[in-house]
Amino acid sequence: MKKYIIDIYGADKGYGVVIDGALDTLKENEDIGIVLCGDEESIKTYLSDKSYDANRITIVHAPEEITNHEPPTVIFDKKQNSSLAVAIKILKEDEDAVALVSPGNTGAVLVGSIFKLGMSVPLKQPALASMLPCANGKLVCLIDCGANMDCKPSHLAKFAVMGSVLMKCRSDIENPTVGLLSVGREEGKGNVQTKEAYNLIKETGVNFIGNVEGNDVLTGDIDVVVCDGFSGNVLMKNAEANGKVAMKFIDEILENEQQGSHTYQVLSQLRERLFLTFDFNSRGGATFLGVNKILIKAHGSANSKTIAACIGQARILESKGFSDAIQTALSI
Amino acid sequence: MKKYIIDIYGADKGYGVVIDGALDTLKENEDIGIVLCGDEESIKTYLSDKSYDANRITIVHAPEEITNHEPPTVIFDKKQNSSLAVAIKILKEDEDAVALVSPGNTGAVLVGSIFKLGMSVPLKQPALASMLPCANGKLVCLIDCGANMDCKPSHLAKFAVMGSVLMKCRSDIENPTVGLLSVGREEGKGNVQTKEAYNLIKETGVNFIGNVEGNDVLTGDIDVVVCDGFSGNVLMKNAEANGKVAMKFIDEILENEQQGSHTYQVLSQLRERLFLTFDFNSRGGATFLGVNKILIKAHGSANSKTIAACIGQARILESKGFSDAIQTALSI
Repeated sequence: MKKYIIDIYGADKGYGVVIDGALDTLKENEDIGIVLCGDEESIKTYLSDKSYDANRITIVHAPEEITNHEPPTVIFDKKQNSSLAVAIKILKEDEDAVALVSPGNTGAVLVGSIFKLGMSVPLKQPALASMLPCANGKLVCLIDCGANMDCKPSHLAKFAVMGSVLMKCRSDIENPTVGLLSVGREEGKGNVQTKEAYNLIKETGVNFIGNVEGNDVLTGDIDVVVCDGFSGNVLMKNAEANGKVAMKFIDEILENEQQGSHTYQVLSQLRERLFLTFDFNSRGGATFLGVNKILIKAHGSANSKTIAACIGQARILESKGFSDAIQTALSI
Repeated sequence: MKKYIIDIYGADKGYGVVIDGALDTLKENEDIGIVLCGDEESIKTYLSDKSYDANRITIVHAPEEITNHEPPTVIFDKKQNSSLAVAIKILKEDEDAVALVSPGNTGAVLVGSIFKLGMSVPLKQPALASMLPCANGKLVCLIDCGANMDCKPSHLAKFAVMGSVLMKCRSDIENPTVGLLSVGREEGKGNVQTKEAYNLIKETGVNFIGNVEGNDVLTGDIDVVVCDGFSGNVLMKNAEANGKVAMKFIDEILENEQQGSHTYQVLSQLRERLFLTFDFNSRGGATFLGVNKILIKAHGSANSKTIAACIGQARILESKGFSDAIQTALSI
């Protein structure tokens, strides 16, 4: 039975939402097992009034939590018994363990994945890919969205390949379009890094459509947008904030409108549509690409649905042979 | 009499809106002169049914236009008689000429400013600063927003100083706050470039508040955000596109609402507010900082109000001794 390892700590709303999300997934999928890593007594107490298939839940005692205020490297010394450290160990050592979902400290997940799980591809560290909802309802894979701050052009070419494999496996797109984030669509536009990356990506065999600009990313016309982790992070946070501004404007109007009125309803629907388009974090996780198994980072703002969505995402990737596909694509 | 040089070509709506904007400014300011650079006959024909103070308008014949499809370097050979080339020549050579406003090819304005106008500060090329409207109604200066693709940390430190001077002169802010665009607020966050820039900016004497993230830029809580031209351009275009998405959602609702109804009015007001917040280009210009005189690039989508706003911006900067202030700040 394939096991999904869950680091229960790191969600702003507490470990309850994480366990709830795992239990929901367990109910919906009869062929999987869940391993919950965290303080055993806390988990047992939380589970005591829940109904679930106990044969498919394993609790692994890991009493410590790595908080977001701690340096990632505590995973190697002070916090070796943390839920995250233990979860990564199980993921690596247990043959049945196929994926790990953690809402914890991103930096700790990153360094833990590099040094405790290991890379499957010729990169020093994984790339972080986020699936962003677009204006037309489609998803775009933004890679890298925050793991690799300083990238060589060859890194961007590898991101292009990995992002393409991710979209193939995740969204059943046969030949995903790949764009390179730049400042103009023409081939010569960009900085030293992207100009060289442009040539390298052309040679990878991905369905490269050339440069794309900041205003192209969320149109839904491109499947994969490649950039370094600095630009990707800046863009993603900015877009989320812009959505919040629009929602704030609506909230200000709603305060003066009568609940239940037509105007109130229309504005509420508009607000919901903006939320679904611009709230990237509450609905899923970012995938670490290039590590030995499937590793998904849920956002700290995750609720139980988010956690269930992350495990679901891991299940799809697992069923499509994602890890092998990435390794094969980059070893050619 | 101080002269403002206007390159009439480059606006999507044609040279009429540029001339109209210049005439409006001329009427409102009795102490300035305007120099219109473009095809003499076209300008005379356009002016024939307008009323204006002819003593304060000079027409300089420059029949050629540099289009956006041409490489910027045509300013040095094929298009030496272009409106832009002639306008820059006058700006440089005429002692009374204080500023140039051009809606033309940005690359041509950039290379023209470097090689035909010259730098006043120890930088190889100017930085491009845009004033972006924020959610709270304030403006933030984003520097660089697209001129310098590959920046050394020392460039970012100079941008910090120049952006600070710009906000002091333009918006009468005594000690503008300056943030460095990065991926986290903590000092250690960022890439190699920003980490080193962080230390250099600390030493410049500007009111440095440290790193800011993609979601902080448009809050209105910071006066100047420093970044390289690649990240700045990506962020700016993304933010504009996000605003357009929200406006598109509203337009779709408006199609089914009765004009004049309360809902229609409320949504139209919301749309206008989003437009004023996210449409960066139609309302003003970007300033090239570090060149010998005041140089403002109006966006191609400019209308007559935009052009008048750009000349107005140049007037304020001129009255505050902006060019000298920049030079002084960077020579210390």
